[in-house]
Amino acid sequence: MLPVIVVHGGAGHVPKDRSDVSCVGVRDAVRAGYAILQAGGSAMDAVVETVTLLENNPAYNAGRGSALNVKGEVEMDALVMDGRTLASGSVSAVRGVANPIQLARLVMEKTNHLCLTAEGASKFARAMGVPEVPAESLITDYARMRWKKNLLPDANPVECQMGKMGTVGAVAVDKEGNTACATSTGGMLNQMEGRVGDTPCVGCGGYADNLIGAVSPTGHGEAIMKVTLSRLILFHMEQGQSPQEASDLALAYMKERVNGLGGVVVVDTKGTWAARFSSLQMAWAAAQQDQLHYGLYHGEDFIEPICV
Amino acid sequence: MLPVIVVHGGAGHVPKDRSDVSCVGVRDAVRAGYAILQAGGSAMDAVVETVTLLENNPAYNAGRGSALNVKGEVEMDALVMDGRTLASGSVSAVRGVANPIQLARLVMEKTNHLCLTAEGASKFARAMGVPEVPAESLITDYARMRWKKNLLPDANPVECQMGKMGTVGAVAVDKEGNTACATSTGGMLNQMEGRVGDTPCVGCGGYADNLIGAVSPTGHGEAIMKVTLSRLILFHMEQGQSPQEASDLALAYMKERVNGLGGVVVVDTKGTWAARFSSLQMAWAAAQQDQLHYGLYHGEDFIEPICV
Repeated sequence: MLPVIVVHGGAGHVPKDRSDVSCVGVRDAVRAGYAILQAGGSAMDAVVETVTLLENNPAYNAGRGSALNVKGEVEMDALVMDGRTLASGSVSAVRGVANPIQLARLVMEKTNHLCLTAEGASKFARAMGVPEVPAESLITDYARMRWKKNLLPDANPVECQMGKMGTVGAVAVDKEGNTACATSTGGMLNQMEGRVGDTPCVGCGGYADNLIGAVSPTGHGEAIMKVTLSRLILFHMEQGQSPQEASDLALAYMKERVNGLGGVVVVDTKGTWAARFSSLQMAWAAAQQDQLHYGLYHGEDFIEPICV
Repeated sequence: MLPVIVVHGGAGHVPKDRSDVSCVGVRDAVRAGYAILQAGGSAMDAVVETVTLLENNPAYNAGRGSALNVKGEVEMDALVMDGRTLASGSVSAVRGVANPIQLARLVMEKTNHLCLTAEGASKFARAMGVPEVPAESLITDYARMRWKKNLLPDANPVECQMGKMGTVGAVAVDKEGNTACATSTGGMLNQMEGRVGDTPCVGCGGYADNLIGAVSPTGHGEAIMKVTLSRLILFHMEQGQSPQEASDLALAYMKERVNGLGGVVVVDTKGTWAARFSSLQMAWAAAQQDQLHYGLYHGEDFIEPICV
């Protein structure tokens, strides 16, 4: 059953033309992560590479293509966690880096802190030799169009928000049985400057523990935080629920208790995986035993071989 | 058994002269919070007022008296959570406000976000009419002395860190049975610019849920985050453990799994409370049934009447 990797490209509701692109992107990304795992690479290497590809793909709300804040700027959040040691690294409200997920990993590996925010995160990036990219390079025409549309007096923010897929993320278990998660996001469309969502918050925007499994969520960040969604799912798994049962329990609870929608990708240490969501759609893909699974709407599980 | 409020002034190891001041401060603060609860005030009002008093007291590492970052500056984190709705508000790496805990409450009440960071948090404070205070006004001679000492080539950061009590926090249950928590900190001595600890991270630096209880922790922030300490304690309580048992289980786990020390104040919805710690000391106080409990070392539970 090992290795395994599961990826999401955000929960939400997107038009047909954009959802096709989302589905292709997660499939390509999961293939790249799976190749790393098959070659004996670590779960951490696999999830960081996978999320890096999704950050570089302008179809997603992470890295290039991020949703813009109310001032029309990109501020990004990212988190990694290593299930062997519970070590974790995150950045919040960071600007001018192409791959926040790689910066989050550097926070974990090169500091004795867990999270760096805003200008402090940028300074750390410079100290680490991470190239600074122009703010404009992270902004797509689509993101700017949506930002402007949402500023109009007759804007419907709920509709606008729904039109954008969220956060990207990945979970994996490598051949050694080590778990890891990685999550990255541009945040909420037209969010306030400095708004931090669930992503960089351990237990909310992701969690990995070699004794249980790993989770990466997407959806309404504030709702995910209120229920500490990632840790909640792992608590259910600790009590005997499967990844799918635990995900469904926690997503139903989030909907009922705080009226929040979202989705998750989950693995346990044996390699059992789940991709579940309470939103209309979630682009997801999983790779295991040389098979690629993927879907977008509820009930979908398309399967094709991975030629390695 | 209701109302009840429990307060901490940080876990750690401090010299005798400073620990006396710490003990007096938490007792005064808990009396103020208890008076609010006895007068029919909400748990949220009580914990915010209590933590405000501790922020204003230069003996604690929060508000005035905060530990300085590596540049000799004050950056503060704070969190509130309302157990009725799971609504929460937090600020991270905020500068130039006297009471981050009140700003965290404003984030919860006046925005549709949960966390604002750094300059975004400061801008929100200005928009809300929160007075900006000079950075110098938050810095005590003691904090500056310790910062300088820790910059010396022969500094012992571990010893320096131990000499400073941590985070302040409070949990309460009001007469209506509503729970709330509040936590505020200046962070780690000589931390990197932009370092965010456990405090503003829901489930790590605090959690409140009317179906279970409330927790406010203190100690090594990165360790608290790795085990999502506050939510972990409440999970143990959901499974039938008392606040004391749940706290001891979770603190022992944090010590064993990630080698982290800390302390917590905890209440359940019936009003059973605990103040537990794995560090050498934690200044704490609790008020219930017109009695004030307090202590600093393990095994202490001094009791005196509260004259109302």
